[in-house]
Amino acid sequence: MSITITDSRLIAGFSRLGKQEKLEIIAGLLNDPAKKEALLRSFFHEDATLQRKFDEFSENTISNFYFPYGIAPNFLINGQVYMVPMVIEESSVVAAASKSAKFWSEHGGFHAEIVNNLKVGQVHFIWKGSRDVLYGIFPELRSSLLQSTRHLTANMERRGGGIRDVELVDMTAEMPHYYQLKATFDTVDSMGANFINSCLEEFARTLPEFLSGEGERESPDCQVIMSILSNYSPDCRVRCWVEAPLEAFAGMDDRLGAKGFVEKFMRAARIAEIDIHRAATHNKGIFNGIDAVALATGNDFRAIEAGGHAWASREGKYRSLTHAELNGDQFRYTLELPMALGTVGGLTRLHPLADLSLELLGDPGAEELMMIAAAVGLANNFSALRSLVTKGIQLGHMKMHLLNILNHYDATDEEKVAAVEHFKTNKVSFSAVSSYLASYRALK
Amino acid sequence: MSITITDSRLIAGFSRLGKQEKLEIIAGLLNDPAKKEALLRSFFHEDATLQRKFDEFSENTISNFYFPYGIAPNFLINGQVYMVPMVIEESSVVAAASKSAKFWSEHGGFHAEIVNNLKVGQVHFIWKGSRDVLYGIFPELRSSLLQSTRHLTANMERRGGGIRDVELVDMTAEMPHYYQLKATFDTVDSMGANFINSCLEEFARTLPEFLSGEGERESPDCQVIMSILSNYSPDCRVRCWVEAPLEAFAGMDDRLGAKGFVEKFMRAARIAEIDIHRAATHNKGIFNGIDAVALATGNDFRAIEAGGHAWASREGKYRSLTHAELNGDQFRYTLELPMALGTVGGLTRLHPLADLSLELLGDPGAEELMMIAAAVGLANNFSALRSLVTKGIQLGHMKMHLLNILNHYDATDEEKVAAVEHFKTNKVSFSAVSSYLASYRALK
Repeated sequence: MSITITDSRLIAGFSRLGKQEKLEIIAGLLNDPAKKEALLRSFFHEDATLQRKFDEFSENTISNFYFPYGIAPNFLINGQVYMVPMVIEESSVVAAASKSAKFWSEHGGFHAEIVNNLKVGQVHFIWKGSRDVLYGIFPELRSSLLQSTRHLTANMERRGGGIRDVELVDMTAEMPHYYQLKATFDTVDSMGANFINSCLEEFARTLPEFLSGEGERESPDCQVIMSILSNYSPDCRVRCWVEAPLEAFAGMDDRLGAKGFVEKFMRAARIAEIDIHRAATHNKGIFNGIDAVALATGNDFRAIEAGGHAWASREGKYRSLTHAELNGDQFRYTLELPMALGTVGGLTRLHPLADLSLELLGDPGAEELMMIAAAVGLANNFSALRSLVTKGIQLGHMKMHLLNILNHYDATDEEKVAAVEHFKTNKVSFSAVSSYLASYRALK
Repeated sequence: MSITITDSRLIAGFSRLGKQEKLEIIAGLLNDPAKKEALLRSFFHEDATLQRKFDEFSENTISNFYFPYGIAPNFLINGQVYMVPMVIEESSVVAAASKSAKFWSEHGGFHAEIVNNLKVGQVHFIWKGSRDVLYGIFPELRSSLLQSTRHLTANMERRGGGIRDVELVDMTAEMPHYYQLKATFDTVDSMGANFINSCLEEFARTLPEFLSGEGERESPDCQVIMSILSNYSPDCRVRCWVEAPLEAFAGMDDRLGAKGFVEKFMRAARIAEIDIHRAATHNKGIFNGIDAVALATGNDFRAIEAGGHAWASREGKYRSLTHAELNGDQFRYTLELPMALGTVGGLTRLHPLADLSLELLGDPGAEELMMIAAAVGLANNFSALRSLVTKGIQLGHMKMHLLNILNHYDATDEEKVAAVEHFKTNKVSFSAVSSYLASYRALK
């Protein structure tokens, strides 16, 4: 196959250009380059030093992308109240979290606990020698591995963390000659990716040297395939729940009543446990809240998503991360998932608003932040299910969406008030709002 | 249980306060309120109308959270070159995507195709009447359901989309009396959540009326539990692959050589198919790229993550989303996953930089954007595996970081070569690089 590239947009050395040159090249590819360059520049921070910091978080940066920074107040978690910062582009998420937070603040709040706080890393390797020999020397190998990382672990150990264990895993049933060193780490308040990967790469240097048996750098029988932390950390897990007697739900829906509401809610929660189509969406709603807290605190949401969804499939079927139960008259709703968060390291303190978010939360450690994020996730999910089993979600959604559409058409405050009234009884859509505004303006 | 709330931060009516009042309350909870208020305000956009737009994307907004907006150039996809906008807080992601894009632009580029573009929505309901009666009347019910949504579907049908099918699913083996209406939708270039949910809620009104048999609003035997789209859309799927003969990989690693590199790469890819710990991380790297494109174009990354990870577990075991194969001398690496994206509706056109991103990509439809996002995901994953099976990722991480710092100090190419050599054996940090450059320049 051969493709001749004639497109002039294939550029050599783009990454080595200065920011201004990159900006001009990109703007030059768009309609009205001067206007587009001005638009991209309008998102720069006024403080050039701070702007340079944002530029260097990533590569080939030409501007900043804005996301709304909002607050969900009144999160009562383990007896303490938090104003939770959330960063999310989807409308209704902060409102839904706030609504749940308010309801539960009147019913004992969110309860949360850390199940465990251990992370996993692996050295994947091929060993063509004898399995028995490998297992026979493993205790000695294990000591060598731990010894080889002393210079890396000293600091972490002072903070209370370190390497907790190194196991040898036989994976030869899955792939010929394939074994793993599976190590467990406590990284305290950091997400720990750099620490874990540095330790693993040290293991990866030590392993073939040790197996060569002659101080050689390589063993002919051993090939390290790769060494890297895992984003699947089932032993770094948080559990969060709410509970209240049936009568707490009396106001949820006039027709259903408290018992009817709880029964319907429990059916909805059960459906998410048994049906993959519903489970994915149910969990998505949980991550709406968790990711918004992760983003606001400079954490890596892809890591949380990967670990959480993989855990949802641990029983051989993808399921919801929640469970509802009724014990006598006491309703209890629980969310449990793995979550690797940090409150030091990475962007958490480098991004000025991530730093401010953490201060607003009372400078929590990683475990406290896990409990806060889980409570927000559970709050969002509770609100979603509450709407779904009562009024449906479109009613609320369309009201939020209406404001966005009105802004798109530069509606004045007066026009907004009139439109909100009108669309209480009319269907919201881009074209409907456009026609409404046109006729409203024509009558002026 | 009873918890007495003494924390003064429990606030009534926060959402009804104006933005300035909210800002003052939040700043007032922090050290040095005046400074923190000024910091939060420093992220406002200078254009008050535009700022109001950002404020109304979400609720209780008090500022904007900045993410770096970067460009990965040279993405050759199906013969066309794209400059891809990426929004991501993690360093190295844009650099890794760019590096892969460059390599593959010299080897035929990325190939991509849409497997299908259908989305799923469900009405979950309880039917206590006879199963046979339900299935017997379903053809007539189906017509009524479709008829009831005519006013909603007319517009979508003009654009080539609409409701493609409505099925009745018997779930009574999982939960007593539980059935689903499972509908399939083509939403063309919109993500379609509002359209799908509106149709489903119309179904949910029609269903009990129809089943009551007497024009009543409710049937005693039928209870609709909830109606909502699914983020698991296995039939809205994109496939993307790269392929090249073995000799293309000659430069990847001097010691491994082309064949050794490909063999090791294929083992690494295989490990991600068989081990959940590696699979989660492998897929996480794919979503680094996909989510960065989703964010830059105003799409909902939680929906993509939920659908993709759930699909990764479809065979009863959570696996990687990629597959590597060697046919004779031809290496081929494929990524396949469901992905619901939109290029109209939602924030895609409302957020000025999302709109600019779409223009930069040539105003693609949803299917073209799916292929672009998949190519970026595959590019990120290819770069990650390439590093993992050769030098490891820590070296690359630190080298990226070094280059960023060197660019920051406007280092010349000659200075960069010298610095890269020097920092092979010295610790990289801003201050170390700054002093190194200063002494290097002084000696000139």
